[in-house]
This record gives sequence, C-alpha cells and structure tokens, in this order.
Amino acid sequence: MARAALARVFEPGDERGGRWLREFGAAEVFRRLTGTEGVARTLAGMTEARLGGYRLRAAGVDPRKDLADMAALGGRFVCPGDQEWPTQLDDLGDARPVGLWVRGRRDLRLWALRSVAVVGARACTPYGAHMAAALGAGLAELGWVVVSGAAFGVDGAAHRGALAAGGATMAVLACGVDVAYPRGHAELIGRIAEQGLVMGELPPSEHPTRSRFVLRNRVIAALTRGTVVVEAEYRSGSLVTARSAQRLGRFTMGVPGPATSGLSAGVHELLRGEGVLVTDAAEISELIGEIGDLAPVGRGPVLPRDQLDPVSARVLDALPRRGVRDGRDVARSAGTSTDEALGRLYELYSLGFVEREGDGWKLTSGPTCNGDARRGVT
Amino acid sequence: MARAALARVFEPGDERGGRWLREFGAAEVFRRLTGTEGVARTLAGMTEARLGGYRLRAAGVDPRKDLADMAALGGRFVCPGDQEWPTQLDDLGDARPVGLWVRGRRDLRLWALRSVAVVGARACTPYGAHMAAALGAGLAELGWVVVSGAAFGVDGAAHRGALAAGGATMAVLACGVDVAYPRGHAELIGRIAEQGLVMGELPPSEHPTRSRFVLRNRVIAALTRGTVVVEAEYRSGSLVTARSAQRLGRFTMGVPGPATSGLSAGVHELLRGEGVLVTDAAEISELIGEIGDLAPVGRGPVLPRDQLDPVSARVLDALPRRGVRDGRDVARSAGTSTDEALGRLYELYSLGFVEREGDGWKLTSGPTCNGDARRGVT
Repeated sequence: MARAALARVFEPGDERGGRWLREFGAAEVFRRLTGTEGVARTLAGMTEARLGGYRLRAAGVDPRKDLADMAALGGRFVCPGDQEWPTQLDDLGDARPVGLWVRGRRDLRLWALRSVAVVGARACTPYGAHMAAALGAGLAELGWVVVSGAAFGVDGAAHRGALAAGGATMAVLACGVDVAYPRGHAELIGRIAEQGLVMGELPPSEHPTRSRFVLRNRVIAALTRGTVVVEAEYRSGSLVTARSAQRLGRFTMGVPGPATSGLSAGVHELLRGEGVLVTDAAEISELIGEIGDLAPVGRGPVLPRDQLDPVSARVLDALPRRGVRDGRDVARSAGTSTDEALGRLYELYSLGFVEREGDGWKLTSGPTCNGDARRGVT
Repeated sequence: MARAALARVFEPGDERGGRWLREFGAAEVFRRLTGTEGVARTLAGMTEARLGGYRLRAAGVDPRKDLADMAALGGRFVCPGDQEWPTQLDDLGDARPVGLWVRGRRDLRLWALRSVAVVGARACTPYGAHMAAALGAGLAELGWVVVSGAAFGVDGAAHRGALAAGGATMAVLACGVDVAYPRGHAELIGRIAEQGLVMGELPPSEHPTRSRFVLRNRVIAALTRGTVVVEAEYRSGSLVTARSAQRLGRFTMGVPGPATSGLSAGVHELLRGEGVLVTDAAEISELIGEIGDLAPVGRGPVLPRDQLDPVSARVLDALPRRGVRDGRDVARSAGTSTDEALGRLYELYSLGFVEREGDGWKLTSGPTCNGDARRGVT
C-alpha cells in the first residue's frame, strides 16, 4: 500500500526516493512525507522547502483508489519482494521502480526470465517494420517473450509479429497501463493485455512525458536478457535502451541496414562499438541463450511439479509423454481457453517443464530429467 | 630472368615452388628443371614422373620474349629484391608470387604502402555499386590507393570511383596484364594502366581460371593494409580475400546492408566475426590509418629529398611553401602531364612529403618536420 502510494510521489528513476526506500522502508518513507512534524526533514537532511514537492504529492495520493481502479481493469500492482517481482530489475539499484502496475494474466517473473527486447524507431522504414515483425515472430517461435514499448514503428511491428506467431509479448509503457498511448495503438495494447502483459511504473491515468519515455527504457533494458535495436537514428531513444542494457551487462544487438540509411546510422554506431550484429531470430536466440544463470531451459525444471498451481498442472498434464501437441489441443484437454493455455505453456517453458517445437509444444527431454520432465527437480 | 621464366612454370601460390626458390634460388631451380640429368630429382626427392609437369612447362618458356612483350606494352616484371617490390607480399611466405607483371608508371612499392582493397560481388545490387563507388572516391580523396580486382560489379565501381575523384587505383588481375578480362572492362583496365597500376602474377597472354581468381585474392589481401567487403554472398570470393587479410594481420572490414539481402549475407557473417563494420571512407581511413609501422604520414618524410628522382623533385618544388595547389597547376609548374603529376604526388604522399587537402595538395606540416617537409628526415 505504501509503495502504491509512493509510485505517485516519486517519478520513474528517482534515485533519491530509491535511497530512502532502501534506508527506511516504504511505510516509514510515506509516514514521514505525510507527517505534520519536522520529522520529514530527517529523510535526507533536506530543507522543508526542497521536500515540498514530495510532501505535496504525498498529501494528495489515494492508493486504495488506484489499486481498486487497477483491479477493476483486471490489473495488479507488483512490488519488490512479491512472488511475481522480476528480480533482475534490482540491477537498477536505487533507480529500481517503486513497483510495476501490470495488466494481463501471465506471471511477470516467469515471462521476464526468457524475454528479449526488440526496439527501434517510431518513423521506421518498411524494411525496419519488416525486420521487427520477422524478429518478433521468429523469437516467439523460438520460445522467447518479446518485450517492447508499444510505440508506432518498430515497437508495434515487434509486438504484432509475436502475437501473429501465437507467441508471448510484453509491453512496457511510459504512462499508466490504463492509458492507451499512442492512441492509434489502443487496440494493439488491448490485445497484448489480453494475450500477454502490459506494464509500467506509472500509476493509473498518468500520461507520458519525454523524460518518462527515456526512463521507461531502463526498465525494458533491465527486464530482458538483451536488447535488439532494429532501426535507430543517431542519439535516438532506442540507443538509450541499448546503452542501458550494456551497462547492466545484458546483450546488446543491432540489425544492420544500408549504410546510406539515416535510420540505420544509430544501429551501425552501436555495432561499431559493443553491439553484436544480428540478422535473424536464430542468431539472437543463440547469443542470449548462452547464459545459463537465469533460465533452466535444457536443464530440466527448477520447481517441483507439486508446487504448480492447478491450471498449470492441467496444462502440463495435457502434453503427451512423447511427441508434440499444439496450443489449441492442449487448451481443449486442459479445459482452458487457447490464450490461457499458451500463457501457461510459456510459464512452464520458463520453468523448464516444456519446450517449443515448430508450432507445438512438448515435454522437456534433457539428461537431468531422464525424458520425464514431470518428475520435477529442486 | 630466371624468375620471369619460373612465373610460367609455377601456378600462383605454388608453395612447393616457393620452397624451392627459397632453398636454391631462382637460377638454380630453373637450371635443375631444364637440366637433362637426373639432377632435377634433387629438388625435393620427387620422382621424374611427378616432376614431369614442371619440366614440361620449363622446357617451353621464353622469358626473353615475355619480357620484351611486356616492355612493348610499357610494362615490366618486378621481383622480390627489386627496389619496387612491395615487401609486404613476403608475408605470404612460400606462397609469395614469383614476381609481378606490372603496367603503369607509378612506383608499386610506394603506392602499396598506402593502399586499401575494396572488393565484393560481381552481380552486386545498385546499393552495392553505389557504396563501392562512394568508398572508392572517398578513400582516394583521403589519399588512399584503392586496390581491387577489375571485375564487374563492386570491383569496377570502386576503381571508377577512385578514378573519378582524380585518385589512385591499382588493379590486381587473375590473368596476364595484357589480357583484358572481363572483356567489358577493357577500357577501364586501360585507364587504370594509364592513371594507376595494373598487375598480376601471370605472364603475358595467360587467361584466368577459377583457382587463379581465388589465388589472386591472396595478393590483394597481402598488398593492402586492409580489405573492405562491400557486398558478398555466403562463401564468395570476396570473403576469401577478407579471410586472407585476417590471417595476414591486415584489417578486415565490411559494409552492412539489409539483413534481407542475400548479397549482404556474407558481409554480415564477416561482421559477426572479426570484421569491423564501416559505413564510409572516413571510418575506414581512421581504422587503417592507426598503424604507424608502414606509412610515414604525419611523421614527416622518410626519404631524404636528395634521393628523389628529378621528376618527383620538380613536382615537389611545384607546391607552395604554404597553402594548397591542385594537381593541374602542379603539373603545369613541373612541366609534366596531369596524370604524371598526380601519380608522383601519390608517391610523395606515401613518402610523407605531401598531403591531400580537399581537391588539392600541400606540403606536409608535422611536428617532426617543423612546417618544412622538404628538409627530409632519414
């Protein structure tokens, strides 16, 4: 509750706020900011005047209403410490989000484990849109969750490519998750909330600003294993994401384009530095799939089967001991909708129980689980 | 004379021949191959039967005629040990050419010191042709000698770009330098011989074969400071050149293109490995200009002014102590043709006496020569 309140007090990436949270805890920070005594001053030896902005905002918040509004939308608020919190965001240090407002039925932590960002220019060329859609679809087919910012151009094409392949996609917004921005992507964002996840640091009804866009990019970078830039001019926002990814030790990749294209100039700059040139989803998957510290894929499940919730367990039971089954058939056997089944399959994928093969899904077969993925390994 | 003879006996890159040359010297190898006694066997413990091919070819050569034919064309034969021999070819070890047949009035050694290869697909796209021409012109303007293979597509565009910029270019052929191959480039090859240099390992009238093309590429790679691949499919000849360059410790560069283009696929493969992505001549020049072991540029001349031949000395005298003069004016003052003056200026550039600035030329001004490049530094 205190974090939901503070999400309206601190702007994204406020490191001073992050420091206070770390030092005093959310409840205490909120108590001091709303207290009438001079106690607020003790937050950081600041004068009352400089604390004024924080106090003013703190006085006006109504976290109960925000949480109720989110719940009405079918959304929730996920905080550090929650089961669903993607702990890789902790790499942002004091710039870590206060919390994330999330729409969609999937488990954010599990999906983020096998996610990759595909970002790029809003005003992309037809080539850029084609590549973004192809990579979105290709990555989804290889079992990756495609993360982007729901903007026009490359972002939208990447989300659509993933959705078209019946894959998983997450949108990280620079505004409240109830605000459809850009307006022209209202339907797309709705579909992502339906089939995937839509999230952001900003509480309901907040609108995007230039700095919020820039700061949103650090969340995309931190959430994913790597960032692919499809088209970007010099000094573009996508390069900010790529550089954040680099600083956080994530993979940074770029799709080449004609040397004559201004919209590839930023990408080429990246590729002349630390960025790795990639031309298709397989190359991306090969690169980011190398690190084994996050995902248990190929090494058998990390969670005992008993700990799965009943719906996931039914979906897992719907897979044959040998061979492949497509999402629709799994849904029928498990008694769920196709979207629900696909969402669960991606979670089970992150957990190491299942794998994608072509259009379908199969149980993980690996040396550690002896052909029977259901046994579960702790 | 013996090397001119052996140039008809050994195919390009014959390492056995190279080993014999190193062990016995050219005259002795030729004597043994043409001797009637069994002495030939001592060349490498080979049976007469296996030596047969060499002996047969050796019996039929007429180096005097070859040299006379070359002289009639205005050409010459340059061997290891000659003043004009580009010693960087020695990096090829026993695969070093027996010698080079050369047409053109420029000094091969001096030009090769500041040269860079621009190679790529014959059946290039309009984008590839544009980039090759732009890089050829841009590199020439920055004072680099543009080396390529005179083939259709990227090669031709690179030569033409350099010529159009009034710059220096060298063609390395996979056939005799009196054979215009490809036929459609007869005029281009003639212009290069006129304004630059045309060279090859193969004696007059020899025709290209598949293996000769492949082996020609090692000469391009070894001769230059680096190789830029503009467009290339998987497993193309240009990639052979690039990989040779890599093995020889030269710079390997590639021009990116659309990820959807098969003609960029080979370049992208290169860029995912050791190759450096480049998009314009300045980036190439910056990269290959870094090494200081070959060229004296920026560090003042390496040859005393007294040792210049009279024409070069006149061209040098035609430059003002301060400021820039264009090639035509230099030619007028020096009493030479414009082509001659430009050729000399490039040689003086390699020697560190002069620099290009925009369209013109000026005396080198550097800390080591105190604004007076004519003083000469040994």
